[in-house]
Amino acid sequence: MPILEILNYAGIAVFAATGALSASRKQLDIIGHVFLASATGIGGGTLRDVILGATPVFWVLNPAPLIVCAAVAVLLFFTAHLFQSRYRVLVWLDAVGLSAYCVMGAAKGLAASGSMTVALVTGALTATFGGVLRDLLANEPSVLLRPEIYVTAALVGSFVFVAASWLALPLWAASTLGVLAAFIVRGGALHYGWTLPIGRALPGRNPDDVL
Amino acid sequence: MPILEILNYAGIAVFAATGALSASRKQLDIIGHVFLASATGIGGGTLRDVILGATPVFWVLNPAPLIVCAAVAVLLFFTAHLFQSRYRVLVWLDAVGLSAYCVMGAAKGLAASGSMTVALVTGALTATFGGVLRDLLANEPSVLLRPEIYVTAALVGSFVFVAASWLALPLWAASTLGVLAAFIVRGGALHYGWTLPIGRALPGRNPDDVL
Amino acid sequence: MPILEILNYAGIAVFAATGALSASRKQLDIIGHVFLASATGIGGGTLRDVILGATPVFWVLNPAPLIVCAAVAVLLFFTAHLFQSRYRVLVWLDAVGLSAYCVMGAAKGLAASGSMTVALVTGALTATFGGVLRDLLANEPSVLLRPEIYVTAALVGSFVFVAASWLALPLWAASTLGVLAAFIVRGGALHYGWTLPIGRALPGRNPDDVL
Repeated sequence: MPILEILNYAGIAVFAATGALSASRKQLDIIGHVFLASATGIGGGTLRDVILGATPVFWVLNPAPLIVCAAVAVLLFFTAHLFQSRYRVLVWLDAVGLSAYCVMGAAKGLAASGSMTVALVTGALTATFGGVLRDLLANEPSVLLRPEIYVTAALVGSFVFVAASWLALPLWAASTLGVLAAFIVRGGALHYGWTLPIGRALPGRNPDDVL
Repeated sequence: MPILEILNYAGIAVFAATGALSASRKQLDIIGHVFLASATGIGGGTLRDVILGATPVFWVLNPAPLIVCAAVAVLLFFTAHLFQSRYRVLVWLDAVGLSAYCVMGAAKGLAASGSMTVALVTGALTATFGGVLRDLLANEPSVLLRPEIYVTAALVGSFVFVAASWLALPLWAASTLGVLAAFIVRGGALHYGWTLPIGRALPGRNPDDVL
Repeated sequence: MPILEILNYAGIAVFAATGALSASRKQLDIIGHVFLASATGIGGGTLRDVILGATPVFWVLNPAPLIVCAAVAVLLFFTAHLFQSRYRVLVWLDAVGLSAYCVMGAAKGLAASGSMTVALVTGALTATFGGVLRDLLANEPSVLLRPEIYVTAALVGSFVFVAASWLALPLWAASTLGVLAAFIVRGGALHYGWTLPIGRALPGRNPDDVL
């Protein structure tokens, strides 16, 4: 199976797992798990295909990703209570999914447009939209608004992949480098609490005043 | 008018009514009613068409659904205060819309892909996305997160329609069976409070801890 | 540069600025500013293109709008703390963006469908979706739910543009009239607190009961 296919299914499966864990935290029933797992697992790739005009979207042409999402959701419906912290598992799986999906999204965007700027955006979008959708549907605070580095990791992974492709590295090498770069940045952010600086407050004003 | 057209307009009109009732609960003005009614009435079908690549979407090709949404919204702007419980009317109309729209979505998905899995998903998506969008825009807790059976009803209706089509029943019979199946499941869930079991808690842990 | 191009970039830049201001209020990092600015700046036009089937969407074909969004976001990341009230700047820029984008959306919708109803809807949708997306992603109360006139201004601007086009006015005149009409209505609503009447309450019922 080619490298991009592997990344695609890896991204789908781990994002689906984060959706199922979110459903478990919200005490939804088994169909709620399947729904939230599917929305998270295929949401980013669906938006990518729609924006690039690659319709019908990937899971209409081949429903295997839907089966993967449903299987992951059912498995987690019966096992999620075994984890000491579902939220911890969720954010780390989300990091794996983000790393796999940013390379997938950048590769598709680069192929469709030939533009590095577009590839960065489709990479970041594909990698983050599933999680954004999961948090919106589950009514949780969005992962985007947390202080640790998140979108930045997807941009770094996309950039490394695009740069390596531009340097004519083979696809598997460029993909592996991109995935690793994204995971190191996001994993480091989770483990060490890495953040980027935030904007300055007006002199003499309390920084928590947001007028 | 063919059966699928009837279901389409029925789904649009009753979903539009739920959007207008939601606008009324939020004390929006008449244009707010029209906006929320339109988003709810055409949201599910719009997502379905975009995913299947059937663009321009249905209401660009023929704006009649927009007129229906606006007319329903104006009517309810002047009459919504007469209902004893706008919320009760809203959830029952939502049940009718869900039943009509899951069959519509499954039929379009089946025609576009030939895959039963895809038809189940487009059926469930078409039937539930309008309500999800309504609740997001109106800043209400999503109907997805309520304990009673919801997405399951759309899946059952889609499944019955697809199975009946596979058994070569005529379209009107397959459609009617699908609509009835979805409405019985969702109506029963509303009237009797039917739920599916939720996941187990970790032994020795309070089930309300969602770590 | 033709008038519609100017309106397009004006809409993108000022909506991007509102997204960056929202990111600043949420104390996000610089990438958070770029993300929220881009989502707000290109969100409405992206939805418009997807619905009309004009894919790949505009910023995949020509990534200049992405550069504009990123530049505006970086500029505001370093300067947003200088404004006495970021929220006040945000809503007035949002008014400018809404005015530019409703004419753009109506023009594209009219060209794609030939229908005035469709043009009104694509105008209103293009003009309001960026702001709705910004508020959803930033977890702020949606601008749609505020009492002052908002969607109505986009509809008025779209209507004036479409009517002027129908009267065979030149494009620049129709566009200018549409932009001015929308801005007068929205600006007046902001300055004077214009509202439309809301629905009546049931006689004998407290108007704040939303049953």
